[in-house]
Amino acid sequence: MTSTALQQVLDGRWSGAREEVRAQLGALKLDPDLPTDDYRAQVTEALHQLAGTRRPHQGFDPAYGGEGDVGGVVTAFEMLGYGDLSLLVKAGVQWGLFGGALQNLGTARHHDRYLRDTMDGTLLGCFAMTETGHGSDVQHLLTTATFDVATDEFVIHTPNRAARKDYIGGAARDARMAAVFAQLVTEGTSHGVHAFLVPIRDADGAAMPGVTISDCGRKAGLNGVDNGRLVFDSVRVPREALLNRFADVAPDGTYSSEIASESRRFFTMLGTLVRGRISVAGGAGSAAEKALTLAIRYGATRRQFSDPATGEEVVVLDYLAHQRKLLPALATTYALHFAQEDLVGRMHEQQKFDAVPDEGLQRELETRAAGIKAIGTWHATHSIQTCREACGGAGYLSENMLPQLKADTDVFTTFEGDNTVLLQLVAKTLLSDYARRVGRLDMLGKARFAADLVADTVAERTGARAVLRRGDVRDRTYQRWLLTEREDHILAGLARRMRAALAPGADQFGIFNAAQDHLLEAARAHVDRIVFDAFATAVDGVTDPTTNALLERVLALHGVATIERERAWFVEHAYLTATGTKAVTAAVNALCGELRPHARTLVDGFGIPEPWLDCPLLDGEQPSRPTPA
Amino acid sequence: MTSTALQQVLDGRWSGAREEVRAQLGALKLDPDLPTDDYRAQVTEALHQLAGTRRPHQGFDPAYGGEGDVGGVVTAFEMLGYGDLSLLVKAGVQWGLFGGALQNLGTARHHDRYLRDTMDGTLLGCFAMTETGHGSDVQHLLTTATFDVATDEFVIHTPNRAARKDYIGGAARDARMAAVFAQLVTEGTSHGVHAFLVPIRDADGAAMPGVTISDCGRKAGLNGVDNGRLVFDSVRVPREALLNRFADVAPDGTYSSEIASESRRFFTMLGTLVRGRISVAGGAGSAAEKALTLAIRYGATRRQFSDPATGEEVVVLDYLAHQRKLLPALATTYALHFAQEDLVGRMHEQQKFDAVPDEGLQRELETRAAGIKAIGTWHATHSIQTCREACGGAGYLSENMLPQLKADTDVFTTFEGDNTVLLQLVAKTLLSDYARRVGRLDMLGKARFAADLVADTVAERTGARAVLRRGDVRDRTYQRWLLTEREDHILAGLARRMRAALAPGADQFGIFNAAQDHLLEAARAHVDRIVFDAFATAVDGVTDPTTNALLERVLALHGVATIERERAWFVEHAYLTATGTKAVTAAVNALCGELRPHARTLVDGFGIPEPWLDCPLLDGEQPSRPTPA
Repeated sequence: MTSTALQQVLDGRWSGAREEVRAQLGALKLDPDLPTDDYRAQVTEALHQLAGTRRPHQGFDPAYGGEGDVGGVVTAFEMLGYGDLSLLVKAGVQWGLFGGALQNLGTARHHDRYLRDTMDGTLLGCFAMTETGHGSDVQHLLTTATFDVATDEFVIHTPNRAARKDYIGGAARDARMAAVFAQLVTEGTSHGVHAFLVPIRDADGAAMPGVTISDCGRKAGLNGVDNGRLVFDSVRVPREALLNRFADVAPDGTYSSEIASESRRFFTMLGTLVRGRISVAGGAGSAAEKALTLAIRYGATRRQFSDPATGEEVVVLDYLAHQRKLLPALATTYALHFAQEDLVGRMHEQQKFDAVPDEGLQRELETRAAGIKAIGTWHATHSIQTCREACGGAGYLSENMLPQLKADTDVFTTFEGDNTVLLQLVAKTLLSDYARRVGRLDMLGKARFAADLVADTVAERTGARAVLRRGDVRDRTYQRWLLTEREDHILAGLARRMRAALAPGADQFGIFNAAQDHLLEAARAHVDRIVFDAFATAVDGVTDPTTNALLERVLALHGVATIERERAWFVEHAYLTATGTKAVTAAVNALCGELRPHARTLVDGFGIPEPWLDCPLLDGEQPSRPTPA
Repeated sequence: MTSTALQQVLDGRWSGAREEVRAQLGALKLDPDLPTDDYRAQVTEALHQLAGTRRPHQGFDPAYGGEGDVGGVVTAFEMLGYGDLSLLVKAGVQWGLFGGALQNLGTARHHDRYLRDTMDGTLLGCFAMTETGHGSDVQHLLTTATFDVATDEFVIHTPNRAARKDYIGGAARDARMAAVFAQLVTEGTSHGVHAFLVPIRDADGAAMPGVTISDCGRKAGLNGVDNGRLVFDSVRVPREALLNRFADVAPDGTYSSEIASESRRFFTMLGTLVRGRISVAGGAGSAAEKALTLAIRYGATRRQFSDPATGEEVVVLDYLAHQRKLLPALATTYALHFAQEDLVGRMHEQQKFDAVPDEGLQRELETRAAGIKAIGTWHATHSIQTCREACGGAGYLSENMLPQLKADTDVFTTFEGDNTVLLQLVAKTLLSDYARRVGRLDMLGKARFAADLVADTVAERTGARAVLRRGDVRDRTYQRWLLTEREDHILAGLARRMRAALAPGADQFGIFNAAQDHLLEAARAHVDRIVFDAFATAVDGVTDPTTNALLERVLALHGVATIERERAWFVEHAYLTATGTKAVTAAVNALCGELRPHARTLVDGFGIPEPWLDCPLLDGEQPSRPTPA
């Protein structure tokens, strides 16, 4: 079969956006090995070229010349991951983070003034949330925005070194304006974190009075992005600088918000920014797809060591060990690709400009986004590392692109939400959802409910379940049953442990902390199941029988490799016997062998344009290589 | 307790060499973020400074001004990993690979002429083994060295692009001479791979006639090392250029060697170069130690999120999830440190200049070196990645050193032997050793032997063993029993599978390939056990009771974390019950908590001088930080 049908499936709903970016980016020339200043200049220039295509406009409000195509714009962003990841992040800062804050936290007074310039890239912005002392715990940022009723201004101030805005993309060189997150104080009372538009550079690029800008310097990767630090020394901005969609301050200093709870208000504001997290997951996926394309195509031509029977040198991808490095990673990359497509679709429906807000759906979207971002970015980091190793010394040379992919994506695991923190959020939501089912809303109450609900059934099934439900480990229904049982069982066990926190005077922090590994396991089990489901749903939608059959096998490999990775748990909980796990390993090996002949087709399905894969690593395959577009 | 006693134990037998390097390297200033040319020049300058200390001389033949202190010189090399890894590799190329080939493969005619200049660094060399087409399978290199009896010369030739010498450290800029590995052909017959001294640059640095030199350019890391490519167009060198310790060619073209078998001769030559592999393992260990020092010291001061009961922000290393990221990795780093010390000691005894060669010991040394290099470099890569993530955005900034540690050490997993290939070598030796015990020498015979030996006992024990031998998972004897049983059991199972290859007409490649994952598992189980034993032996040698007690706990954490990682296997094979593995996880968590108060002491024990750790990441701890030396 050819990869065309496969690409159609992978391109999915926003295939138009994908094709546009494929065409657009051919023109860009970017060289991450340039000195920092030159590379930054190149990336900024490319950012303006992107703005010229008007693709980034499409995610914004149609009332201001946008098209409200949120899904399309995130998909287009994701495609940049096939090209240059500094440009991807730079675009993400400008249109996703800064533009997103402006669009989603601001109101007409901000949109009228800044939205078109932001879309066009004539106003470059940055997103000043993280501080040196607070990254994950942004609710406790230290920067203050104190309202001065006398002058009708907010005073933005950095009280100490820990309050310095840090790692801010765009701050070191390009940004004229920052969306600054600070504790809003008025009439002597703090109302929590809010965002303010603060000019940080004048028209000549000089720092504004009271703003001290410094440069974070070289990083492991993404050196085309000018990360910097901002310190504010009582910088005054008009009252209207407050992005006031969810809260406002009147000229007399009165604070008002439709959302009474400070915490709920904060999380509502953050929730509108979920797009950034989803975009990072997409970018990581593209990078993993590119790395796997390079390593698999190389592995399919590289030979090493002879078969003693024939004397012929063996293609390295014919070695089982090499297949096991790359093919399960490829299968999981497929799974994450479809989970991402599903996620983008859900986001699109909720964020399009005529959508009716739905708190439940928003909450589910945020949970999915957190989980898929965490699992997806870790998967990318591990897979790219494996691809580098699978290409040996050649994989270590910059000319063969893998080093840059690895260095650039590394930080994805900790920015836009640290993965460990994100998985905890997922687990906490899972625990809350138990409670919701019986109307018990407090977190500890729901732990008790969960415990009551499952304690007996768990005890009943133990020991019997492997016998009761023995299945073919390649069978989708059986795989899903295993993944679902794991998800439910781990969550139930976690809820049982949480009961201790209910006792009067219990050390709640200590109890939660002691279960932290359990919490993370619950989240992972959940994400494993939803990713599997998203892949399975996508496979079911494929009508072409050849493509469907191939994808069904990729799904089977993804499923059985996930079960193999977690086989300790399945044996411990009597879902699999020792013989059963041997069958799991045998199935992984067999599926690797069955997919081996399709490996090239499977990576070609990503549709990464040949010019973006053009490197000496693939010179060996030149004769059989398709002509570059 | 203070870290002084601990450092004494970790410094071990070559504490003098360690102290020397600690003092010497304070003077070096190296900046990996410089442009490639400048950084290379800096590293070469530092190489000459190192030569000036005469430390590198100490590993060479006393007859030429060396001291024959092989262990000391490898330990000193390992210490460079606390500083700059490009310098470490550059030194390794000059004195380990080039100098080692000269010393160990050459004879007096080479030593007299080149050894002193090599030690002094007035002759810079490179080690031209790897080719574009052959990295792991060096026995099948394509470069030829054809003897021309008419002129008494060898003609060194690169027949095609795949035969190009590639990734050669030192080739792009500095090396005047290369130790070139090529197929020796004389009188129309090829005698396999041999090494030749080939001048590649003249006194002015211009390429010698017939030698084409190119530059590999930027790499993921190690950019202070000038890796390049060499192509030889019928380059003539005198007959004496052959490094003739193990084989020679007479003026009439007659080939002679004490070692009749071409393959055995080849592996004997390679065996003398084991020092390089051992050195890489040591360098990886130092890098992991430095990364853990940075991440643990940061984690012990960084605070994030509040304890709801007290309102106080929690130190991140007090979170269980953070402890689980760093403390088991630290425990295993300790284990590998002592395994490395043991390995260096063994090498020293066999390679010192008055040692009596012992083939059995040499073989054991090579197997250990291969296994510890593979497991140690993977551990370093994973641990440094984890440390980077544990430091969040700060860990991504070059100023905080983690990016460079990660980028530099990445290639350690695939150079000086690809880890996957090395583990296969280990497994093959393990299989052969079975056979040796009953005098059956061929590889398949021994598989049958192993199968006969254990098939019954395995069957007998299954199911009963967990009950028979239930133990405290923190107990050293019990841990060792588990690790040993795993090692034996996996090897026995592997041997049983290999029986199929005995059948007449069996597809031997297919059978071995199908068992490749099993082979790798057998090797890992073996290395896990020998690393554990080396750590345990070292702990037993510690007389100070406080230090001994602390190290005993670090050993316990290393042991139980290894068992946890492999718990699927232990449950599958009925060594542990489901309850047993819960106890394993509980023990990992408990030991993390117990070692938490000692975390700072444990990293201080490495004795990394403060100036080499001086970075903004640790600014937060400034007040309590010891005064830099």
